[in-house]
Amino acid sequence: MIRVMIWNENRHEKTDASVAAVYPEGIHGALAEPLRREPDMTVRTATLDEPEHGLGAGALESTDVLVWWGHLAHDEVLDEVAARVQQRVLQGMGLIVLHSAHMSKPFARLMGTSCLLRWREAGEKERLWVVEPGHPIADGLGPWFEIAHEEMYGERFDVPSPEATVLISWFAGGNVFRSGCCWTRGKGRIFYFRPGHETFPTYKQRDVQMVIRNAVRWASPGDGPVMKLGDAEPPLEKL
Amino acid sequence: MIRVMIWNENRHEKTDASVAAVYPEGIHGALAEPLRREPDMTVRTATLDEPEHGLGAGALESTDVLVWWGHLAHDEVLDEVAARVQQRVLQGMGLIVLHSAHMSKPFARLMGTSCLLRWREAGEKERLWVVEPGHPIADGLGPWFEIAHEEMYGERFDVPSPEATVLISWFAGGNVFRSGCCWTRGKGRIFYFRPGHETFPTYKQRDVQMVIRNAVRWASPGDGPVMKLGDAEPPLEKL
Amino acid sequence: MIRVMIWNENRHEKTDASVAAVYPEGIHGALAEPLRREPDMTVRTATLDEPEHGLGAGALESTDVLVWWGHLAHDEVLDEVAARVQQRVLQGMGLIVLHSAHMSKPFARLMGTSCLLRWREAGEKERLWVVEPGHPIADGLGPWFEIAHEEMYGERFDVPSPEATVLISWFAGGNVFRSGCCWTRGKGRIFYFRPGHETFPTYKQRDVQMVIRNAVRWASPGDGPVMKLGDAEPPLEKL
Amino acid sequence: MIRVMIWNENRHEKTDASVAAVYPEGIHGALAEPLRREPDMTVRTATLDEPEHGLGAGALESTDVLVWWGHLAHDEVLDEVAARVQQRVLQGMGLIVLHSAHMSKPFARLMGTSCLLRWREAGEKERLWVVEPGHPIADGLGPWFEIAHEEMYGERFDVPSPEATVLISWFAGGNVFRSGCCWTRGKGRIFYFRPGHETFPTYKQRDVQMVIRNAVRWASPGDGPVMKLGDAEPPLEKL
Repeated sequence: MIRVMIWNENRHEKTDASVAAVYPEGIHGALAEPLRREPDMTVRTATLDEPEHGLGAGALESTDVLVWWGHLAHDEVLDEVAARVQQRVLQGMGLIVLHSAHMSKPFARLMGTSCLLRWREAGEKERLWVVEPGHPIADGLGPWFEIAHEEMYGERFDVPSPEATVLISWFAGGNVFRSGCCWTRGKGRIFYFRPGHETFPTYKQRDVQMVIRNAVRWASPGDGPVMKLGDAEPPLEKL
Repeated sequence: MIRVMIWNENRHEKTDASVAAVYPEGIHGALAEPLRREPDMTVRTATLDEPEHGLGAGALESTDVLVWWGHLAHDEVLDEVAARVQQRVLQGMGLIVLHSAHMSKPFARLMGTSCLLRWREAGEKERLWVVEPGHPIADGLGPWFEIAHEEMYGERFDVPSPEATVLISWFAGGNVFRSGCCWTRGKGRIFYFRPGHETFPTYKQRDVQMVIRNAVRWASPGDGPVMKLGDAEPPLEKL
Repeated sequence: MIRVMIWNENRHEKTDASVAAVYPEGIHGALAEPLRREPDMTVRTATLDEPEHGLGAGALESTDVLVWWGHLAHDEVLDEVAARVQQRVLQGMGLIVLHSAHMSKPFARLMGTSCLLRWREAGEKERLWVVEPGHPIADGLGPWFEIAHEEMYGERFDVPSPEATVLISWFAGGNVFRSGCCWTRGKGRIFYFRPGHETFPTYKQRDVQMVIRNAVRWASPGDGPVMKLGDAEPPLEKL
Repeated sequence: MIRVMIWNENRHEKTDASVAAVYPEGIHGALAEPLRREPDMTVRTATLDEPEHGLGAGALESTDVLVWWGHLAHDEVLDEVAARVQQRVLQGMGLIVLHSAHMSKPFARLMGTSCLLRWREAGEKERLWVVEPGHPIADGLGPWFEIAHEEMYGERFDVPSPEATVLISWFAGGNVFRSGCCWTRGKGRIFYFRPGHETFPTYKQRDVQMVIRNAVRWASPGDGPVMKLGDAEPPLEKL
């Protein structure tokens, strides 16, 4: 069983009626719904305004893959919680970073770069091309899929060069973006997935749900060695 | 079910009594034995001296992951068969390349480099260090494992820089080697695994078997898009 | 001094008046002209219909960076010459592969994949975004540049994942493409650069010339070790 | 001219007579000496106990490549200065991280991982193998070089998978290590180079000096585009 935790800032939903209309159960609710139908996953949710943002150590210790959506209130996430998420990723927890969470604290700490990008709210068409058809995150997709209306994110996206770039987006307004990016940090796997502006029903779209579901499976922890690092050790061979 | 095909040159076993003593059922037999115990795998074997080396189109079409061991007779492998293996990898078949198969025709065609390396037959100790503990191929391993007696392979190994280097070997005689290397070519995943000199019972060792088993699972084909390439196409957007 | 050799198939220019009108001195002539103004480069050209295609062993031995344009007649390039180019790259010669040379024999041998892609001749707008602004091949560029009319090449481009993707193209008709891709093979550096359809004056555009000039410098050979590979050797340490 | 700044913690030299005996002008002095002979470099030094550690904004603004050695007092480096170094790297400054600086604040911030490793002080033999002979940092080296006595650093080294691994070390005591590692972060290039324990005259050795000199050249900033990120922008194409 993959123990999935979906974390959502959950602020737009409370303050903006148009967002609440699109996501009446919150973005976390919309993200959770299709994953709950997967037989190999159990799904919990947590939000910013819960104590410790719902991510106390116990919660993270029992999480295999953390999905993160945030936008307005990155700064309100406690440094202590961001550091804890980072540590858990290094120990093997998967992390799926969605849309405006490119500026979230855990992602920024793990990337080491500014994570800035170009952006435009014009509700334009986005077409996502699969550039690595053999990657597990592309399972079940066609050569491309479209989102009718989305916020634009454009290059330069200031992140470390991904270990695999699964998707590249085309935007009607003239931009491109590496929209599906994989990294390993410590023992953990990280996937950034671009779509998901709060005013569009992007997370209700089948292709988008498929990518997230595939990413959760891809990022779920393995059983590799626990590395005892940082301590002096004797030689293995005679010197 | 992962349909595994183990291909072995099977010449040392016929001409060298010491090899036959170590591997009475052939290297392919030794490789097949532990995989046959896996509930999600079916295993067949094929050898050089069969018609079309046991790799007629039908055989390859029904193979998910091909394991390849060769040494003395790389040149006897028909170019047509090597090209067929290459094509199947590009379409998604996994390929596990073992030890002296670094000079095999299918691997050389897929790498595009000389695939040369340093080597020495001195039966020295090899210690394989896990450098990517989060990679699926490292599942179940400790921080390192040893092989008491092996042929040495040393850097520079003339291959394209791996997408992931899971294992690096230390040799008592003073050399190092990238011993567990991952690449994607087309839709197919390729893993090169260094150990397995014919005069040592390396493939009977548990850690070695574990790496090969993990690699077969990692390299098994996904369900990504079939890409229709090479044909002219109309614009998707109005020009 | 970087010794540059520009190789051009030079067939369109002879048979198609519209191409001859755009490139009266041949595509090789247009590519050579700006490089001849660089103080650190000497430039020669060679074409398909010369003996050994102008690429006898002596010519390649005295080449630091080879620029390759071909389209109609990839099959007429002798296998022996393609193999010689491949060997020289592995020894350290740089290779700049332009536009339709994605299907050339030397490139295909070095990549190991089909090198196929989507394409469309509609003279549409191409906008090339810099995604690695710190890469030497991006020197002097702005965040993006445009080509008013070009043939479209679209993903999936079936090549090994590049070591660096410097440029990604947006096409008006709805496609994206990794247009500036870097690989190392053996000791040699390879850069694929997408633009350059024969019916458009692409190679007379300043940004395009700048990319090619930067790529020639980036791909020029270093002074790294000559690796003696493939021979048995004694242990460096006492066994 | 490449403006090099060499930063040294400079504490061992003050408190440990054996270190002062090896490096009477400080580790920074020993690092500076060979670089001062390079006609394309100007070299300054700075140390921990200077105001702002000698790295005020002005000093960093006028630095092209920063070389960093630290060990005992990583925690004493001000967070503000570490953040400033990180920002300058993202803007294009090169960073050469030496030996025990794997745990320095700037490096840890840029990597996003624990940067831990195995270690042992036994003065054992280290042999560094060149695994990317075509990389500029390998210029002038042979297939390998040795350091007679060094501290051991061993894998797992918890850093993001390098974009290029130029050197891998063999240690007599049975360990291996990725000793020459390249990354790009933002527009800046980072090189980690393993050797340089304070009690051994490692930085006086010619091969070691050659690697550092090559790395400084490789990491010196280019002239790529300044990316204005983080602002909304109008569509470039009509929607």
